[in-house]
Amino acid sequence: MRNLTSLSELSIQEIEQILADAAAFKKNEFYWQPNRQLFIANAFFEPSTRTRFSFEVAEKRLGCHVLNFESEGSSVQKGESLYDTVKTFQAIGADAAVIRHTDNEFYDQLADKVGIPIINAGDGSGNHPTQSLLDLLTIKEEFGSFHNLTISIHGDIKHSRVARSNAEVLSRLGADVLFSGPQEWQDPLNTSGVYADTEEAIRVSDVVMLLRIQHERHEQKSSSVKSYLEEYGLTRSRENRMKSSAIIMHPAPVNRGTEIDSDLVECEKSRIFKQMENGVYARMAVLKRSLENSNIGAGLHVVRA
Amino acid sequence: MRNLTSLSELSIQEIEQILADAAAFKKNEFYWQPNRQLFIANAFFEPSTRTRFSFEVAEKRLGCHVLNFESEGSSVQKGESLYDTVKTFQAIGADAAVIRHTDNEFYDQLADKVGIPIINAGDGSGNHPTQSLLDLLTIKEEFGSFHNLTISIHGDIKHSRVARSNAEVLSRLGADVLFSGPQEWQDPLNTSGVYADTEEAIRVSDVVMLLRIQHERHEQKSSSVKSYLEEYGLTRSRENRMKSSAIIMHPAPVNRGTEIDSDLVECEKSRIFKQMENGVYARMAVLKRSLENSNIGAGLHVVRA
Amino acid sequence: MRNLTSLSELSIQEIEQILADAAAFKKNEFYWQPNRQLFIANAFFEPSTRTRFSFEVAEKRLGCHVLNFESEGSSVQKGESLYDTVKTFQAIGADAAVIRHTDNEFYDQLADKVGIPIINAGDGSGNHPTQSLLDLLTIKEEFGSFHNLTISIHGDIKHSRVARSNAEVLSRLGADVLFSGPQEWQDPLNTSGVYADTEEAIRVSDVVMLLRIQHERHEQKSSSVKSYLEEYGLTRSRENRMKSSAIIMHPAPVNRGTEIDSDLVECEKSRIFKQMENGVYARMAVLKRSLENSNIGAGLHVVRA
Repeated sequence: MRNLTSLSELSIQEIEQILADAAAFKKNEFYWQPNRQLFIANAFFEPSTRTRFSFEVAEKRLGCHVLNFESEGSSVQKGESLYDTVKTFQAIGADAAVIRHTDNEFYDQLADKVGIPIINAGDGSGNHPTQSLLDLLTIKEEFGSFHNLTISIHGDIKHSRVARSNAEVLSRLGADVLFSGPQEWQDPLNTSGVYADTEEAIRVSDVVMLLRIQHERHEQKSSSVKSYLEEYGLTRSRENRMKSSAIIMHPAPVNRGTEIDSDLVECEKSRIFKQMENGVYARMAVLKRSLENSNIGAGLHVVRA
Repeated sequence: MRNLTSLSELSIQEIEQILADAAAFKKNEFYWQPNRQLFIANAFFEPSTRTRFSFEVAEKRLGCHVLNFESEGSSVQKGESLYDTVKTFQAIGADAAVIRHTDNEFYDQLADKVGIPIINAGDGSGNHPTQSLLDLLTIKEEFGSFHNLTISIHGDIKHSRVARSNAEVLSRLGADVLFSGPQEWQDPLNTSGVYADTEEAIRVSDVVMLLRIQHERHEQKSSSVKSYLEEYGLTRSRENRMKSSAIIMHPAPVNRGTEIDSDLVECEKSRIFKQMENGVYARMAVLKRSLENSNIGAGLHVVRA
Repeated sequence: MRNLTSLSELSIQEIEQILADAAAFKKNEFYWQPNRQLFIANAFFEPSTRTRFSFEVAEKRLGCHVLNFESEGSSVQKGESLYDTVKTFQAIGADAAVIRHTDNEFYDQLADKVGIPIINAGDGSGNHPTQSLLDLLTIKEEFGSFHNLTISIHGDIKHSRVARSNAEVLSRLGADVLFSGPQEWQDPLNTSGVYADTEEAIRVSDVVMLLRIQHERHEQKSSSVKSYLEEYGLTRSRENRMKSSAIIMHPAPVNRGTEIDSDLVECEKSRIFKQMENGVYARMAVLKRSLENSNIGAGLHVVRA
């Protein structure tokens, strides 16, 4: 059984395999479906549009039935634990569980303890591995490789699960990672990147990866938020100074006019909506990996001519 | 690509085509399905039972996968705009979006701006085109044509999206429209009908179309609500004075005992539940129209013997 | 048309038939599917994980489409009655309705009044027939028969729908039922069992059936809740005194450490997660019974070699 908990637990070979499968799904190069009717439980304990529906599309494209669990309207209101909730889904027939939860490393109480694969769809503030995988897929699609790429991550480095996951894996894959943003959001514990001035970072990067200002996570809004775009965000003039081959990424939802000038969201350099599209393929590959290696039987794998 | 935003934008020929397709779906005269597995996003930003599930049944009958989005538990709580939400659904693979939203003409920011067809499932207080289409289907099924029919609309003419849509299109199709109800709910801007006394309107009508008293929309409840049934509603004695061939319609949910005597909801003249049934076929026809004309490929259309 | 409202309305023969069908579904002995594409409406008016998803899995395994209705985000917020809500689902194409509702005997206003079968998924505090059926299936699977079994039900006999349903049907099937628990939760109106001391009941039982302490139903928490496990619950030392062939059951969600020592939830004697698994098969059998006897056409029934 193969869980997906954190990207740091995957070898480079495993990551490359997932990216190769995702690319093959995207190019329609092969058709893979489980060899019996499977059920996947999507258990989301905090709001999500992109991740939740992206998984749902991925699951349905693989021919699986989907059980959409949200914490409202459930026995979680009666105090049921996460472990018991997931065991319940296993008992009633779920073949895997995709979970987003507010607790850090919630999966430690589940992975290899319940009898089905656990796929992390985002935990408290640590890991969001399928977001990283879709980012990697988007970068690889653009540049073919990660070696010698300069990738700058802009914003709240300290609180972002995207920053943490991506910096670690991008370094491991051979890219140079720069961090940029307000000083109070620097993260001394994250040593996978080097801090750089915003202007410099944008000028030298192949990938300008903007982070979302997570207003809903910051109890006290930073005084710098108001002028954030001008000081640290991607303005039109900064976009003009990007390398001609460079691309813009953002995990979304975008705060238009804060992290990025609204007009740039769909500009030529932007891959923001392509990231979302790639999320479906990355998740199909992750599901394939978990399902074909669990005891639920190997999937049908047909290579197209 | 064909959106459905407002009935006023459809020609009589287009309306007749939708009604013909709906009738054919109902009679099982033909079988139409998209020629690949499609996904439809149903995005509902306010409560709905009938419209939401009616679309879901229509979509599933056409063989489509359904993505049920509600504004709670989504990134809308993080401030994401409607445009970005719909673009997200497009990016992850939705082939069309069915949307109910509280903003008037919300579709103006979407239609022909995102890359998928937009189907209006009810906006703020203006338009609810699939409700009108199911009403038209029900009337046509009964009388064969709209010419020379007298159709009276009873209730809150001013705030009702049904009144607005229906009066316009019924006039255009050749029917005579009467409005009736409390004076404070008359709408001087709606010139598609003529105001008439309740008794008179009920006596001469082929179709008595009752509107829902939308308590949830009226900040201050009208003083006339209490005695509404006796003064303006369909009592049993008024029903006795209807033409023998006349029918009763209501968009539902019915406030039993307010707009209509509770015993009449399922009486012989009532088409209230038939309207709901017809809603599924009208929506199948609307979906067919949007999907077969978009760039997602023509559908398979098999005429049954 | 066959509703499932209360187990007390089923004959022993009917119960045995449902259990036989459920066992056959579980052993994959036959394959039954409706002979056209059906829609089942699941209408849940209070929180539920187990029952709701168990029905959803059962319905999808039978090849049905599922319409998941929850009272939030619906026209129930506009004051629509249960009857009108269910009639709406019938009108838009639901072939059966599975309903959980807080009102006692809510089904009396529906069964044989709307045109589709009604399946009770739990009412106010009276009946929860599919829970009883999955309990019966679990007991029968273990012991082959109900005759001469001693089954003790522990906890809040007075407020538990499980206690009421199970005691009645188990007595009827030939088992001896014991009740045990705090004196203030005894139910003088429930004459299907005999009250016994906790120690004695656990020592002599073939089945120790624990009830959930329903904190959310008790306005005032009993003073005995704190020390409940020690006084009335299944501790490890009590489990040691159970008969070697005896089993532990609980309808779940379990309050670990209240009704039962947390370590015993997955112990060798426990059938708690097996009950959940059996719930899917019991519900498949209940759906088959309702659907094959309604006017929607007989199902395809293929006996496997």
